[in-house]
Amino acid sequence: MFGEHAVVYGHPALVAAISRRVRVVVERLDEPKLVVSSSNLPIRGLNLELRGDEIRAAVDTRLALRLLSYVLEALEVVDQHLGVEERPGLRITIDSDMPVSAGLGTSASITVATIAAYSALRGAKLKRETIARLGHMVEKRVQGAASPMDTAIATYGGLLVIEPGRSPPYRVLEAVSPPLVIGYTPREGTTAELVARVRMLRERYPDLVDMVMESIGRLTRRALDELLSGRLDSLGELMDMNHSLLRALGVSTKKLDDMVNAAKVAGALGAKLTGAGGGGSMIALCPEKLRSHVEASIRAVGGSIIEANTGGEGVKVESLG
Amino acid sequence: MFGEHAVVYGHPALVAAISRRVRVVVERLDEPKLVVSSSNLPIRGLNLELRGDEIRAAVDTRLALRLLSYVLEALEVVDQHLGVEERPGLRITIDSDMPVSAGLGTSASITVATIAAYSALRGAKLKRETIARLGHMVEKRVQGAASPMDTAIATYGGLLVIEPGRSPPYRVLEAVSPPLVIGYTPREGTTAELVARVRMLRERYPDLVDMVMESIGRLTRRALDELLSGRLDSLGELMDMNHSLLRALGVSTKKLDDMVNAAKVAGALGAKLTGAGGGGSMIALCPEKLRSHVEASIRAVGGSIIEANTGGEGVKVESLG
Repeated sequence: MFGEHAVVYGHPALVAAISRRVRVVVERLDEPKLVVSSSNLPIRGLNLELRGDEIRAAVDTRLALRLLSYVLEALEVVDQHLGVEERPGLRITIDSDMPVSAGLGTSASITVATIAAYSALRGAKLKRETIARLGHMVEKRVQGAASPMDTAIATYGGLLVIEPGRSPPYRVLEAVSPPLVIGYTPREGTTAELVARVRMLRERYPDLVDMVMESIGRLTRRALDELLSGRLDSLGELMDMNHSLLRALGVSTKKLDDMVNAAKVAGALGAKLTGAGGGGSMIALCPEKLRSHVEASIRAVGGSIIEANTGGEGVKVESLG
Repeated sequence: MFGEHAVVYGHPALVAAISRRVRVVVERLDEPKLVVSSSNLPIRGLNLELRGDEIRAAVDTRLALRLLSYVLEALEVVDQHLGVEERPGLRITIDSDMPVSAGLGTSASITVATIAAYSALRGAKLKRETIARLGHMVEKRVQGAASPMDTAIATYGGLLVIEPGRSPPYRVLEAVSPPLVIGYTPREGTTAELVARVRMLRERYPDLVDMVMESIGRLTRRALDELLSGRLDSLGELMDMNHSLLRALGVSTKKLDDMVNAAKVAGALGAKLTGAGGGGSMIALCPEKLRSHVEASIRAVGGSIIEANTGGEGVKVESLG
């Protein structure tokens, strides 16, 4: 909701779970191989088989391999954490009704779910704090750099304040999640590419970009106050400002601006891009009675609507045996 | 070009004259009355006659009366400056091919031209510094508050850095004016209303708004370096950031965002709203070979193009006698 990009530079962020879930099933195989498949991810028909150093991929897309990196690293950090060396044969099945590159943390959700499911299979019941920490480690390994934001919210659900530098780097908020409309447009870059683009902008204009980051940090702290007090009008106004500050960092696009402005014209209290930007998703703060109007306005400028409410649960382990 | 709104809070601004002129003719009348008329302002057929306390207005619009306020205060400050008490009968004729509320400083131009012409009629040849100072005084009286920006650039032409708090509060720049495309859309509020809106935002979010202002100040100082070095790419990037920071202050509109994004998509190096915002004008930094393409793109989203180049002259007095 608040603080994207600035969180990479040590500022706080405010993040809400949504009511959409990723499901990762981890099963033991008799053969020493790893089979990863997904029936309904946007990379449909994904079916990867790893045997030693050999990868057999039915759909060998860049996206599928990126997704596989998260799964492989998740298995790796769990093995390290548990101190085990031999890994059994595994079948991993991923189901998600979310687009992988919506900028809504699908890869973090898959990572966290894989960690929870695989550690359960190995007989360990990890605490949420451990799952979140291992998840963050996976994202750092795959992306080079990552904030703890996505993996923490995928682990805990609800509402979190991310506070980089503290231990743990997040705090659970006991507050009601605000009503959001979520719009989506295909992304032009990955999170890692957008974080790198901001880093390059900061190299060219260090004091200026640092001050924009600090502004986002102040804004996020103020948004936390407004959220806890239930002042949605102010929260919306701060979302508008946060979008503009993200735009100043060069991570908005014409399409995201169009969707944000369309939501505002339709009566949203505030609207901003969410996540790393470069396309992906935007959110509009919107009383229920205006929801369908705001959704129609976002669609009218070419955006899709992701049907979801805020306030989803965190990771859960269920035994299928 | 840079620093709008932040200049009201003591930060620097960078301003360029354009190649469009306002012409104010001041003639002595035998009768003790004041006749103000304009043949080609957007408030066409403006014809105001003042006799004592009586105003006879052929077109009594709010805009015409606002314009008259600048003219009356301009006469007043010249009389005070020259220490004269009796004012002769006057006919004042205003010609301009610029829209009055484009946010391009037309009222400041009329103010400065009236001061120069009327003082010349009274036999005084005022220095530019005096004309700029009296012009600023007029704008403060009419608007309640005003930066010295518009009246200074109308007086000097060329390129100026505005440095509030210094004496004089501006510095003439010896640099080549960058190539700009100017787009226009009708305004939804006056400069005074927009300055007031920012002041109210600052009352609600003081530290946040101050930091955005400070960011605009830093950006403007950096833009000055880039301009003097002729680095147009960086200048464009800073224009983009400045637009976003003005948007964070709530002074952009959907239409201005559309025009700015349209210019960028067509290849402009940078684009931003210019002036107080709330509609009005935007500028795009644009190499000559892309000019017609950028203009077409701005028109395609409903903006008009104001045909003008940067680098106009300042105020000039010509005798018609």
